[in-house]
Amino acid sequence: MSKRILIATGGGDCPGLNAVIRGVVKSAAREEDWHVYGSIESFNGILKDNVEVVELTEKSVSGLHVKGGTIIKTTNKGGPFYFPVKKDDGTWVTEDRSELMKKRLKNMGIDAVINIGGDGSQAISLELSKIGINVVGVPKTIDNDLSSTDFTFGFQTAVQIATECFDKIVTTAESHSRVFIMEVMGRDAGWIALHTAIAGGADVCIIPEIPYDPYKINEKIESCYREGKGFCNIVIAEGAKALDGKVTGTNPTAIGDRHIKLGGVGDKLKQELADLGIEHDIRVTVLGHLQRGGTPIAFDRILATEFGVKAFELVKEGKFGNMVTYRHPNILYVPLEEALKKPHLVNPNKDFLVHTARRIGVCLGD
Amino acid sequence: MSKRILIATGGGDCPGLNAVIRGVVKSAAREEDWHVYGSIESFNGILKDNVEVVELTEKSVSGLHVKGGTIIKTTNKGGPFYFPVKKDDGTWVTEDRSELMKKRLKNMGIDAVINIGGDGSQAISLELSKIGINVVGVPKTIDNDLSSTDFTFGFQTAVQIATECFDKIVTTAESHSRVFIMEVMGRDAGWIALHTAIAGGADVCIIPEIPYDPYKINEKIESCYREGKGFCNIVIAEGAKALDGKVTGTNPTAIGDRHIKLGGVGDKLKQELADLGIEHDIRVTVLGHLQRGGTPIAFDRILATEFGVKAFELVKEGKFGNMVTYRHPNILYVPLEEALKKPHLVNPNKDFLVHTARRIGVCLGD
Amino acid sequence: MSKRILIATGGGDCPGLNAVIRGVVKSAAREEDWHVYGSIESFNGILKDNVEVVELTEKSVSGLHVKGGTIIKTTNKGGPFYFPVKKDDGTWVTEDRSELMKKRLKNMGIDAVINIGGDGSQAISLELSKIGINVVGVPKTIDNDLSSTDFTFGFQTAVQIATECFDKIVTTAESHSRVFIMEVMGRDAGWIALHTAIAGGADVCIIPEIPYDPYKINEKIESCYREGKGFCNIVIAEGAKALDGKVTGTNPTAIGDRHIKLGGVGDKLKQELADLGIEHDIRVTVLGHLQRGGTPIAFDRILATEFGVKAFELVKEGKFGNMVTYRHPNILYVPLEEALKKPHLVNPNKDFLVHTARRIGVCLGD
Amino acid sequence: MSKRILIATGGGDCPGLNAVIRGVVKSAAREEDWHVYGSIESFNGILKDNVEVVELTEKSVSGLHVKGGTIIKTTNKGGPFYFPVKKDDGTWVTEDRSELMKKRLKNMGIDAVINIGGDGSQAISLELSKIGINVVGVPKTIDNDLSSTDFTFGFQTAVQIATECFDKIVTTAESHSRVFIMEVMGRDAGWIALHTAIAGGADVCIIPEIPYDPYKINEKIESCYREGKGFCNIVIAEGAKALDGKVTGTNPTAIGDRHIKLGGVGDKLKQELADLGIEHDIRVTVLGHLQRGGTPIAFDRILATEFGVKAFELVKEGKFGNMVTYRHPNILYVPLEEALKKPHLVNPNKDFLVHTARRIGVCLGD
Repeated sequence: MSKRILIATGGGDCPGLNAVIRGVVKSAAREEDWHVYGSIESFNGILKDNVEVVELTEKSVSGLHVKGGTIIKTTNKGGPFYFPVKKDDGTWVTEDRSELMKKRLKNMGIDAVINIGGDGSQAISLELSKIGINVVGVPKTIDNDLSSTDFTFGFQTAVQIATECFDKIVTTAESHSRVFIMEVMGRDAGWIALHTAIAGGADVCIIPEIPYDPYKINEKIESCYREGKGFCNIVIAEGAKALDGKVTGTNPTAIGDRHIKLGGVGDKLKQELADLGIEHDIRVTVLGHLQRGGTPIAFDRILATEFGVKAFELVKEGKFGNMVTYRHPNILYVPLEEALKKPHLVNPNKDFLVHTARRIGVCLGD
Repeated sequence: MSKRILIATGGGDCPGLNAVIRGVVKSAAREEDWHVYGSIESFNGILKDNVEVVELTEKSVSGLHVKGGTIIKTTNKGGPFYFPVKKDDGTWVTEDRSELMKKRLKNMGIDAVINIGGDGSQAISLELSKIGINVVGVPKTIDNDLSSTDFTFGFQTAVQIATECFDKIVTTAESHSRVFIMEVMGRDAGWIALHTAIAGGADVCIIPEIPYDPYKINEKIESCYREGKGFCNIVIAEGAKALDGKVTGTNPTAIGDRHIKLGGVGDKLKQELADLGIEHDIRVTVLGHLQRGGTPIAFDRILATEFGVKAFELVKEGKFGNMVTYRHPNILYVPLEEALKKPHLVNPNKDFLVHTARRIGVCLGD
Repeated sequence: MSKRILIATGGGDCPGLNAVIRGVVKSAAREEDWHVYGSIESFNGILKDNVEVVELTEKSVSGLHVKGGTIIKTTNKGGPFYFPVKKDDGTWVTEDRSELMKKRLKNMGIDAVINIGGDGSQAISLELSKIGINVVGVPKTIDNDLSSTDFTFGFQTAVQIATECFDKIVTTAESHSRVFIMEVMGRDAGWIALHTAIAGGADVCIIPEIPYDPYKINEKIESCYREGKGFCNIVIAEGAKALDGKVTGTNPTAIGDRHIKLGGVGDKLKQELADLGIEHDIRVTVLGHLQRGGTPIAFDRILATEFGVKAFELVKEGKFGNMVTYRHPNILYVPLEEALKKPHLVNPNKDFLVHTARRIGVCLGD
Repeated sequence: MSKRILIATGGGDCPGLNAVIRGVVKSAAREEDWHVYGSIESFNGILKDNVEVVELTEKSVSGLHVKGGTIIKTTNKGGPFYFPVKKDDGTWVTEDRSELMKKRLKNMGIDAVINIGGDGSQAISLELSKIGINVVGVPKTIDNDLSSTDFTFGFQTAVQIATECFDKIVTTAESHSRVFIMEVMGRDAGWIALHTAIAGGADVCIIPEIPYDPYKINEKIESCYREGKGFCNIVIAEGAKALDGKVTGTNPTAIGDRHIKLGGVGDKLKQELADLGIEHDIRVTVLGHLQRGGTPIAFDRILATEFGVKAFELVKEGKFGNMVTYRHPNILYVPLEEALKKPHLVNPNKDFLVHTARRIGVCLGD
């Protein structure tokens, strides 16, 4: 008898989403009479008044492993429990459409849902599970801050892009004897910053997990000039925080839109250094969206494909309420509850990467 | 008898500077008893109290064609006619050190100077010529805004980098159904923006030469959604200007530092569109320094090498007071006076590129 | 009244073909009631018994500027004047189907043909013109060997790819103190080899236009070791020829398939050097198809788009029997007869590129 | 008291070697009075009559993380136990110079040796340990075939390069309706081939661990055409072997030089398919040295840096006779004996990657 799967992608886009989708569809195509559908714009496609759900065939996913983003679109607005509805008086309210979703899935003959997304999305997966929908989660976080998996897809691509940008900036810093501050993603977790700093050869790396002391950074900068290097490169995560009482510059900007904030941490650090009387020319570059777009590197294409293959398998075997994970070299799964446990942040005292940074002379701001 | 050349690089760094230097040094190495020296940080190396001039040999330039920036460093401060000097009372004044420079060149036995730089640098070249210094100029402008040459090195690399960044952003715009505004270099000339928009497949391209009407841009954006594309990508040059009376947003920011201005033209346009009531999600990305750093693409390595070879030849043949130029497929030269004539801006009525943009449906904001 | 254009792409694929197609289709979409069709596998689509012609719309060409190859496929077999037909006895003959083509174009209401292809394809364009078909040619040669245009699309991408491959090989050559021979495209014209050698910093560059003397190459290699460089990199075009009487190795291989020949010129040169008693470790790398695949660089995307726009314009203005060309910064056209004149080969005595190579110390084998 | 380390790099070059060296030197620079030296061309630098050993300082390793290859050069000839010596009669013999090495190390005050290399090099490390030299090994195998570590540096770069090459070839295969065979590294282990095939979206992947049946491959190719894809891409590892009795083509070529063999497995497979009467156009591309050169990707720069840091630490702590390893996320070490145990080959029945390949429809030739 025919079996049907609905896929949704939620939250910020991430290189590899399409490869997961392709992995699911191609796996299903190897089986008798399985069909895969995509809900457009996360679950909104199946929730809104005019349902927007498309069939995904081997032909429609052909070549997708190379393509960034997600062909079934994504959003971080709405969702089954807080679907936005416009009232007659023009104001907006949110509505719980989870039961509607359940009903529609049944009517459409959909047996299971594969939900690809971050912690917000997986919390929804868990709630949907609880009301009896068959869900399998696939983790998506470009920040790599999940404790249940070695890596998530998209992270290595972000690090590679940030490193290539850093390589470009080094030549300008050197030619102009400047200080460069490059701001990368990482609100809570400093993984992208830390990897980029080591891969790029930064002099300073500031991550959210290690509050920084502007004096220490100033000192490191001065040593770069004093000891003959003649320039200084800083990688800073967008969630970087100065040590209490050490913030000498402007007040931290409220972080609304995480990627285009004017006056982000890079500018703030620049101001703090200026306040400390630094005389070198300082420039700030914010990578922003460049880090999450474009073709995934091979590592992420492979991991995402494996995740897609595993997600289909969990569906086929009826192992619902779980999320796919990677424990090298295996692809495993964990219950959604467990998957949502505390995020995997950099441990300044234990992670070998932190140790490596210090040993090669990177100042971590402390 | 031994002959000596002094090279200087001035103004913002640019992919290909090192390849020019290498071209000069390798050319000189083919001749009997020529020596090449580099003045560190443009002419400041030979002007300051403790002269900083290094010999450049075939060995020291080996592999330089691949390396961005300039190994002899650059600056846009100082120079022979306005060298900064600190007075006893701690204030700064500028000093004309051109005669000192002439004297030092003579004392060091330097027969000619090759000055690689933009219009500011070549204006200095001309003045140095007038006081009897043997100068050959090599043009350097990443904006490609010189009328005396088909292309300048660095430009194609900047366009390639901007295009690759644009490609990355497209996948995110599409996945999130967003409007993206990508800000590129170009204070007066829109060449980088125009090339990038055509190469990347932008929907809108705003250049300094065509003042834009926010209503027209808004209309184009709406058509992207109405006609089913579902997202919209805008390339804007940093020198973009709204039509008089059409500026609906904040006042244009004074452009101080050209690359890190907060509230640049991208943010301004975003505000104007918001003021017009646009409901789509808009994001701004500023490429900034990423465009001028890193390894030059093959095109620029070749052009820069040819410029270096030609510059040495002009020196050898005593053709001073000239600047090297490229008229495909030849490398020629023009008098410095002519080289400094009016910049080569986009001609909205004549350039085939503008015509091409319009024909493939790119909105130019007018 | 409705107007119809048929596009065909012929000969080897080339980065930018899709961008030309997109340029034509998008130009046509700006006009009232123009339709564009693609003949699958060059003209075979319209010539074979079951016609294979597809409509090309703005939607179907969306995003094509980024994609290598050609969506309407290509071939170098068949064509209107020599279409292969299987006889009853199983043997193959060729048939002149040009009149059939004319008739079918008329029946399908097609007003003009845009033929994108190399010299073989443009010779067909000319013949089709002569029998009264409205044809506009768009030149396609990755070797850049046309005298009527400054550049053809695809060439700069090939040079960029070859240069990046060369950069990779340099590190291995240096680490192992080896001689590397890298074979690139160029049966008759050495442009790709010459550009790559200058962009990559090769020690030796062998092109078809300059027959090489193995003794001279051997001498250059020895000087690389004697003078302390410690390794040597050679770029050789696939059409390279040794000077008469200097071929010391095996007989030149007959060049059948131009890209996958075993025992190509690289291996031959290796043998010749071995015969001369060279003691260094020599390795050969053949780039082959890597040079013509994948995403075009920005330069080629732009040029190809301009060619597409211009080709449509020629059709619209009824300027048939012409081929589009590029004379910086203009896009022009020339009669097909003129376009087919003698190829644009490297002139060893006049081209500044050759001069540049010699001046920076590249041995050209003579 | 001053401490001294000697580093050597042996075997084929690999992206990341320089990053390891830099990691060691920078670690040592954080300590009081440690000095690091490099033996040029693996141990030959310290073994040959005119010792060639250079001091490595923070300045001399600056920027090395970006550079492919090894600045202290490498070789797979010679070594302490079989050093080549020319006799008076002109013939060559090998000599055991291990005691000489021990003596020289002592005379030069060298306390420990860090030997970066593959299984051959680590076997030497073990032997040197046994005669009382303090050795720490750092594993280097681009094939990633070590069971004691999750990954080795260089592997991910090789996969990324091969994948990018594959992406290029896809467009040509598609445009010409061809079969492409791309040959990658992997004499015994199919990891590079398997990763590339999944990352690139190959139709067929042939690895040494799964002897292939040409009939099965032929069948898969035919299905690609029959079912409408219209082209077919094959990745084959250089150590691929046909099933006994199934080799229909020429005899397998003896593999002498692993990278430039003419008539490698790709050509052999092509011949076999031709013998089976395939009518599609088949092309072969051999990646060869391209896979191991150039700038390492971020992943490998980081891993190599961690290895360098750990190697220094083992030296400092006196933990000799061990080899550094990576067990995500930790950097650990194992005794050299254990490190040399059986290679880590693809397990066709257990590895999730193999399973993934099959599930997305990749034919593995069986």
